[in-house]
Amino acid sequence: MDFKKEFSNRLDFFNQSLNEVINREIGDKPTQMQTLIWDSIKYSVLNSGKRIRPIILLEIAKILNADIDRAKILACSLEMIHTYSLIHDDLPAMDDDDLRRGKPSNHIVYGEDMAILAGDALLNTAYEIMFKYVLKDVNQSSVNACMSIVNAAGVHGMILGQVSDIKIVDRDINSLNYINLHKTGDMIRASFVSAGYLAEYDDMLTLCRIGENLGSAFQIQDDVLDVVGDEKNLGKPIGSDKFNNKLTYVDLLGLDECIAEYKKLYDLCIDDISSLPNNEFLIELVKFLMNRTN
Amino acid sequence: MDFKKEFSNRLDFFNQSLNEVINREIGDKPTQMQTLIWDSIKYSVLNSGKRIRPIILLEIAKILNADIDRAKILACSLEMIHTYSLIHDDLPAMDDDDLRRGKPSNHIVYGEDMAILAGDALLNTAYEIMFKYVLKDVNQSSVNACMSIVNAAGVHGMILGQVSDIKIVDRDINSLNYINLHKTGDMIRASFVSAGYLAEYDDMLTLCRIGENLGSAFQIQDDVLDVVGDEKNLGKPIGSDKFNNKLTYVDLLGLDECIAEYKKLYDLCIDDISSLPNNEFLIELVKFLMNRTN
Repeated sequence: MDFKKEFSNRLDFFNQSLNEVINREIGDKPTQMQTLIWDSIKYSVLNSGKRIRPIILLEIAKILNADIDRAKILACSLEMIHTYSLIHDDLPAMDDDDLRRGKPSNHIVYGEDMAILAGDALLNTAYEIMFKYVLKDVNQSSVNACMSIVNAAGVHGMILGQVSDIKIVDRDINSLNYINLHKTGDMIRASFVSAGYLAEYDDMLTLCRIGENLGSAFQIQDDVLDVVGDEKNLGKPIGSDKFNNKLTYVDLLGLDECIAEYKKLYDLCIDDISSLPNNEFLIELVKFLMNRTN
Repeated sequence: MDFKKEFSNRLDFFNQSLNEVINREIGDKPTQMQTLIWDSIKYSVLNSGKRIRPIILLEIAKILNADIDRAKILACSLEMIHTYSLIHDDLPAMDDDDLRRGKPSNHIVYGEDMAILAGDALLNTAYEIMFKYVLKDVNQSSVNACMSIVNAAGVHGMILGQVSDIKIVDRDINSLNYINLHKTGDMIRASFVSAGYLAEYDDMLTLCRIGENLGSAFQIQDDVLDVVGDEKNLGKPIGSDKFNNKLTYVDLLGLDECIAEYKKLYDLCIDDISSLPNNEFLIELVKFLMNRTN
């Protein structure tokens, strides 16, 4: 398999879907005010992130024979929620990051007020498109698929992770796991689980486990890359976690143990993915993530 | 009819429902971090607002024989969304208000970071409870009822209103109408419309019109009260709109014309409400709003 080409095809497919969905929301004749808020939304959400979550969701949907039109919308919702969380996270009152994905953060370009509203708008739009396109001709599996994303984003999931990241000052390995499980893990798990619900797949437990292990691996690796990566690759200042005075996995476990740990977790993902049909791309994706440098 | 008693009964019913829903979301054994975010959420959402929107939604649901359990959840969603918008609106980067409903604003008590997250959490929770309780044993009328609220809150509704309120500097009557239609009108209309959908009511146009007229009346009256009210009654500094250098209806139309206009709009509401069954309380409610001093 030519992984780069396969990845690129899927990335293009998702980006095109996202563009279509957003243009449909904007409509043919936006007012001046609508153009203002959509410009600030598009600046962040169309700003070519890794798109790992939506690509996973679409791949699981595809190999498990879920309805692809609905899966496309859920993938867009997932990316909108992810992007809103980054916009709010970067605000001066939160992490105060001026750079995101190598470009000035949303609030640097559009002002703090518009950045707050662009984040709010993205979160709300994520749910508007679910209602409009996933829940039309409604059935319970669509509701479950949506709900797994809504729950992952909220106060039992990602928001709880953000609160913990702000408020837990004295960190040990348990509290760091708790933060990461929620802050990044819940949304990554949702990318597997929501597609599984949509497909009415019967082994949801395996999908959950893959999502959880992938989320943990990803986060530990992020901490490693924050120490060993280079600024250009990462698109943010090196050692920013250190600068923010937040203990990371590297501080707690050391570099070597971190690398061993995330490799072990990625291997567990590969084992579980082997039980899924047509899994070639997903296995290559995990290997690609394991070897990423940013 | 003893309006005060009837209103108080409905207020108690809603507040009790909201308490129940929130306590169910918190669960029996919240972690320390869950307690932190819920404390900040509860501070704002349980802080006894007027509850006009949820009381309207529940009343329409009742007189049109909608499922009251679902209506209760939608009323809670509506109030959560309203409260999130107030928390974010009060932030230093937005209106920078230190007081809300006579008490220090959320960010004054919990810090800006937690206020941003409490707002995000309320918005997300509004949708979590819809999925959990309104869309179980799902049917199309429940989907429509939810969707009317989701759309009213978003970038075609309330958020568009907030963007316009920030960005439209030179105001005439058209731009002021545009701002208010979206900033407050869309959510007030949703309180009528969502209950109508839930009840599968056949005259949705009338419900829309009542909501729109009530929203306009309410906003024009707010501008009047901002000039003639007293600080204690309003719970915010008198003339704060003037201080923020934003033109109001009073600036554009004069005090007398504003009063005549909002009374006319309230009268139109009463005419339309007369076509609804068991409308005594709603008519008294409109009269009460017309004579409010805060």
